[in-house]
Amino acid sequence: MKEIGVGVIGTAFMGKAHSLAYAAAGTAFGDGLRPRLEMVCDINPQIVEAKRVEMGFARATTNYMDVINDPNIELISVCVPNSVHKEISVAALKAGKHVWCEKPMATNVAEAEEMLTVARESNCQTMLGYNYTQNPLVQSARDLIEEGVIGQVTGFHGIYDVDNEADPDRPYSWRMNREASGTGANADVMCHLVSMAHYMTGSEITRLVGDYDTVYKERNDPENPGKKLPVDNDDVCTALAHFDSGIKGTLRVSRVAWGRKCGLRWEVHGSQGMICHDQERLNEIQLYSRCDDPRQQGFRTILSGQYHEPYSAFLPNAGHTLGFIDVKVCELHHLLTSITTGKPGWANFEDGFKIEKVMDAIDRSALSGQWLNV
Amino acid sequence: MKEIGVGVIGTAFMGKAHSLAYAAAGTAFGDGLRPRLEMVCDINPQIVEAKRVEMGFARATTNYMDVINDPNIELISVCVPNSVHKEISVAALKAGKHVWCEKPMATNVAEAEEMLTVARESNCQTMLGYNYTQNPLVQSARDLIEEGVIGQVTGFHGIYDVDNEADPDRPYSWRMNREASGTGANADVMCHLVSMAHYMTGSEITRLVGDYDTVYKERNDPENPGKKLPVDNDDVCTALAHFDSGIKGTLRVSRVAWGRKCGLRWEVHGSQGMICHDQERLNEIQLYSRCDDPRQQGFRTILSGQYHEPYSAFLPNAGHTLGFIDVKVCELHHLLTSITTGKPGWANFEDGFKIEKVMDAIDRSALSGQWLNV
Amino acid sequence: MKEIGVGVIGTAFMGKAHSLAYAAAGTAFGDGLRPRLEMVCDINPQIVEAKRVEMGFARATTNYMDVINDPNIELISVCVPNSVHKEISVAALKAGKHVWCEKPMATNVAEAEEMLTVARESNCQTMLGYNYTQNPLVQSARDLIEEGVIGQVTGFHGIYDVDNEADPDRPYSWRMNREASGTGANADVMCHLVSMAHYMTGSEITRLVGDYDTVYKERNDPENPGKKLPVDNDDVCTALAHFDSGIKGTLRVSRVAWGRKCGLRWEVHGSQGMICHDQERLNEIQLYSRCDDPRQQGFRTILSGQYHEPYSAFLPNAGHTLGFIDVKVCELHHLLTSITTGKPGWANFEDGFKIEKVMDAIDRSALSGQWLNV
Amino acid sequence: MKEIGVGVIGTAFMGKAHSLAYAAAGTAFGDGLRPRLEMVCDINPQIVEAKRVEMGFARATTNYMDVINDPNIELISVCVPNSVHKEISVAALKAGKHVWCEKPMATNVAEAEEMLTVARESNCQTMLGYNYTQNPLVQSARDLIEEGVIGQVTGFHGIYDVDNEADPDRPYSWRMNREASGTGANADVMCHLVSMAHYMTGSEITRLVGDYDTVYKERNDPENPGKKLPVDNDDVCTALAHFDSGIKGTLRVSRVAWGRKCGLRWEVHGSQGMICHDQERLNEIQLYSRCDDPRQQGFRTILSGQYHEPYSAFLPNAGHTLGFIDVKVCELHHLLTSITTGKPGWANFEDGFKIEKVMDAIDRSALSGQWLNV
Repeated sequence: MKEIGVGVIGTAFMGKAHSLAYAAAGTAFGDGLRPRLEMVCDINPQIVEAKRVEMGFARATTNYMDVINDPNIELISVCVPNSVHKEISVAALKAGKHVWCEKPMATNVAEAEEMLTVARESNCQTMLGYNYTQNPLVQSARDLIEEGVIGQVTGFHGIYDVDNEADPDRPYSWRMNREASGTGANADVMCHLVSMAHYMTGSEITRLVGDYDTVYKERNDPENPGKKLPVDNDDVCTALAHFDSGIKGTLRVSRVAWGRKCGLRWEVHGSQGMICHDQERLNEIQLYSRCDDPRQQGFRTILSGQYHEPYSAFLPNAGHTLGFIDVKVCELHHLLTSITTGKPGWANFEDGFKIEKVMDAIDRSALSGQWLNV
Repeated sequence: MKEIGVGVIGTAFMGKAHSLAYAAAGTAFGDGLRPRLEMVCDINPQIVEAKRVEMGFARATTNYMDVINDPNIELISVCVPNSVHKEISVAALKAGKHVWCEKPMATNVAEAEEMLTVARESNCQTMLGYNYTQNPLVQSARDLIEEGVIGQVTGFHGIYDVDNEADPDRPYSWRMNREASGTGANADVMCHLVSMAHYMTGSEITRLVGDYDTVYKERNDPENPGKKLPVDNDDVCTALAHFDSGIKGTLRVSRVAWGRKCGLRWEVHGSQGMICHDQERLNEIQLYSRCDDPRQQGFRTILSGQYHEPYSAFLPNAGHTLGFIDVKVCELHHLLTSITTGKPGWANFEDGFKIEKVMDAIDRSALSGQWLNV
Repeated sequence: MKEIGVGVIGTAFMGKAHSLAYAAAGTAFGDGLRPRLEMVCDINPQIVEAKRVEMGFARATTNYMDVINDPNIELISVCVPNSVHKEISVAALKAGKHVWCEKPMATNVAEAEEMLTVARESNCQTMLGYNYTQNPLVQSARDLIEEGVIGQVTGFHGIYDVDNEADPDRPYSWRMNREASGTGANADVMCHLVSMAHYMTGSEITRLVGDYDTVYKERNDPENPGKKLPVDNDDVCTALAHFDSGIKGTLRVSRVAWGRKCGLRWEVHGSQGMICHDQERLNEIQLYSRCDDPRQQGFRTILSGQYHEPYSAFLPNAGHTLGFIDVKVCELHHLLTSITTGKPGWANFEDGFKIEKVMDAIDRSALSGQWLNV
Repeated sequence: MKEIGVGVIGTAFMGKAHSLAYAAAGTAFGDGLRPRLEMVCDINPQIVEAKRVEMGFARATTNYMDVINDPNIELISVCVPNSVHKEISVAALKAGKHVWCEKPMATNVAEAEEMLTVARESNCQTMLGYNYTQNPLVQSARDLIEEGVIGQVTGFHGIYDVDNEADPDRPYSWRMNREASGTGANADVMCHLVSMAHYMTGSEITRLVGDYDTVYKERNDPENPGKKLPVDNDDVCTALAHFDSGIKGTLRVSRVAWGRKCGLRWEVHGSQGMICHDQERLNEIQLYSRCDDPRQQGFRTILSGQYHEPYSAFLPNAGHTLGFIDVKVCELHHLLTSITTGKPGWANFEDGFKIEKVMDAIDRSALSGQWLNV
């Protein structure tokens, strides 16, 4: 079993998730590359050594260039705030390192394009953290669609509702400021939904009309009790979309939808059936086939299992359920396979750039009130 | 128990449903008006007498004016094709009869406006067959919303998918022709969704952008094997909407969505919770309240029961389930109450006219590619 | 359309349900016999005339023998307390009337046997109100089982939980006294579950061990505040069972199961699949077939529809949902068909007697702590 | 962060699961003990070195005594066939090592008792792999029950159905032979259900009647095509049970239940509510509280989240879903906490012994047809 040296930049939740994935991949898959946890980076000198110990890395640094320049490291995780994705990813690619970068790719299309250009010029593999598309059961559903189980794809409809900001009394934060963080639900949530739309349909959104709603137009100023601050980005973001395959669809996301914790729900409509998914039940796919006997037609609840590989890297029998972290390990596995084979996988920077362009078009359309090409 | 003479015009499914409701209302409610089944009308002389016997009416006719002119009849059901709704409803209202007319109200806004004008000039009560809003559990949900159980309403999102025309091999029919039947999914399906949007939010859609998709652009000509005929109305109809209360929302309907039989699903988002419904499970409402203890928060599946009146007109205990016909009896009950009290109920011709205007605006927007005021 | 004169004895909920069914059957089915509502009986002279008007009968009486002796009446509904089922049913059968008797058949096996004997000696049809087995979708599931869709039946497991008596503060009533009402959950609830076990498997329970639990051993005396009265029958009743086909199964019912309103849930296990049902979702059946492609295997949620006749007597399209009353109409329809054809249907007094014997054996086993033959 | 040297004996699925847990625990929890993967043991010399590399251990051996005698190892995982649990666990405990042993504890009560005796005499902590009880959401449900959220516990009802052996054409194996493997579904599946019954109710089963069913009485001989071999242990195992707290309940398990992959479903009934769980949806608990407003009462679907600790060791927000392996990490975490604090946790050998006694009593009862004390 060959090893690959890895480094993680950023130790918040996503840095932790990447570290867990690196620690598990060898044991889970038992073939291909085995990650060797070389160096972790956090800009905070107070915590970086403790994080090194916890996360099981050999070395620690507060300077991300140490990771990039380390000759033992071939693969680098970019788990830092979105505004620094471009800077670090570009530096890593230029140093010849493979890059596993969290989503969204960047804070605007120009940055994403620069990242893509550098990636194209490199010999390195890239992977973005659109992990909901990495679920073995979702990938199996995509295979079934490609095999024609639901006939021709005729539409895609998706929702991604969360309640992170649903509490009207939640104080103002930089996330609610367009200048500081860019768009709101569009940047945070819509990118996942667009990744799913592209992935499941094998098609891209090319034209759309979008809309925003800022449900809570001001929030409590956390520093001045009794004062309010204006919110100027979107709590809710919606779009009607046309795809290059000729199908149409709808997208809507909200960060203020009480009760939805990870409410990514999508439907692929077909000429002979339908496939649906709800991320809160990540181990279940709903499939309807009109080919079943009429008395027996109904949505089937298919449970994750050994027929939906690489499920069996984790569990021998169906129904025992994968979790979010396991899916992150699958994501890493696909990247490691790309590194071994030289064949780019989903979602690389090419894929990510297309997603960014859709988010950008939604933004322009929501602001202008026009149907626009992506 | 006072009686009211009733007549039914049209004996296809909706005529049957109205007749079942008339036969059940007295026994179910045991107070108010008891319908007395006076006369049934069908233009087909071959079947009208058999239908009279089946449906339990005293007399039959092939001329709807016989029903309208009958002095023993005070309430008339209009269960004929949409294109004749206006003609019969107007005649009935002018003759001083109360009118229970099936949905949609008419085939265009002008007709609906004429119906409304005549209704306003009459002393009669009107009711449109937007029966999904008549479900006791749905009405209870509306009460809860009005009482503030989910806080301030912040959004409405609805879907109504059916698979009536989902089979690509289903032959061409007049329903697929804009000239013959008007819009497709917009007229057939969207009207129900708009009725629900208005009813649940207590607010009206005032601005929108809509889109159409004709998924199957041609269908088999049933009369010329091997030939195709073009479909020129919408299989799928979608919209982004603004309401006069300031909230925003989304609407989408399809007549080609495999597996959805009566897939009317809607969500009312609020500042303190959410309420959702799926018409295929008409005896269940989903309610999330952020006021529950954090460890115990979750969507509650509330079953129809005696706390959601007039459930107990049918069943003494919760969970025993109402059906479509029972809800139709509720609809009739509300109309009979209006007749008794003189107080118009939902959905009368005022409400219906507003629904028609939204459908019309969706149509104009879908054809023009513009955001439009209703 | 031929008519049949009917009488209803008892005007509480079940009398009302039978009356609603009689009023609907002709319109719903449009063929066979059309019930003509002749006479209703209630022993309470204060209400009987009002009930007559409400329920739409021609005549009323306080003496059930008037109904039995009426020459225009051929079919009689027995909707009175269980303790009088035998007396009235026997009198009706002896007078040559068909009998539609509510469940359970009687208060003990001896009474049930007498009813059966008289029924056998008559030329009349009998029907017991085991209405959950009359659901078109359930009957379709039985057909599928008989056709081998789940292979050989290998087991039956059923639960019927309700919360009628779940509140510990609910006052004592005669239902909680063995002398006054016989067994508790066994009589009230288990009979439905046994009917389902027999109906779905086409097999009978022949040997069992049963157990009782009186969860609330005393209840508030409603007449003496602060005093308690002992409960001496079962809140919970459970059994392990062997069937004459060789399969085994389990049964459990409770009248103190919070949250279950009509929680009749059963599973038929087979060598090639499984079929499950939950009465609270009476329009859905769950079917698993191991013959589906492995990646696509899952429980299908089959919605009631026109492929599950006589669904289309009520509704033209699937998914529009039948309710409890509609299923009661189906029950009546099956009885009317028996009357027309002379062919006994399920659940006649033969079937009911077998159910009573099982309940009796559970009772004896629960009291003796022994496995017993039925 | 202190380290603890660990060894794993057995490299099949459970050895892999323990190794994944050891690799993840430090990063996930970031405090307490960090496992250091010292040595792995497999009796097969062909694979042990490859397994060592895959699973990330420092050393490998084919002799389990090497693990037990290694001075750097303090904690040993026993992931071998059930028949060797006792031998290895006893040796490890006698060598002063903490033991994490897979379920069931042993192949009979005598072995389990010996293991318990040795554990009591040691200063070591023990943990059995009853992982379904280690789910943070399940543990939170237990807390809620203890806090009285559903009032007094009044009953426990559980099912554990799987379809591992549901295919009648599946060939005979040693698992189907009582001499070779002991009981069937009782040993394999019932133990999990009993662990849940004890854990959730905080009470123990003391009296029961059990039953067996061997659904497929012979299976294909894999070595002699066309020949059959008799199956002499149980495919289905059921019981009616009394608990020492005074409540009663039911248990049933099957290894031949098509469609159930990990169908562990249980209900705790209470005087003020109910809590239910389905292991196939491990991130959801159903809670009904009769204290909710009557119009709003219903089962709540509570999603795993940060309010159900140690969820946040894995994920920052609710609804992102834990998987089987994550729950195994929780199990390990509880053991490591026991090692640190010296305070035994659930399910230690004391708990396991009580579970074994119930399984034994079920077996004796099923064979004798008698109610028996445990």
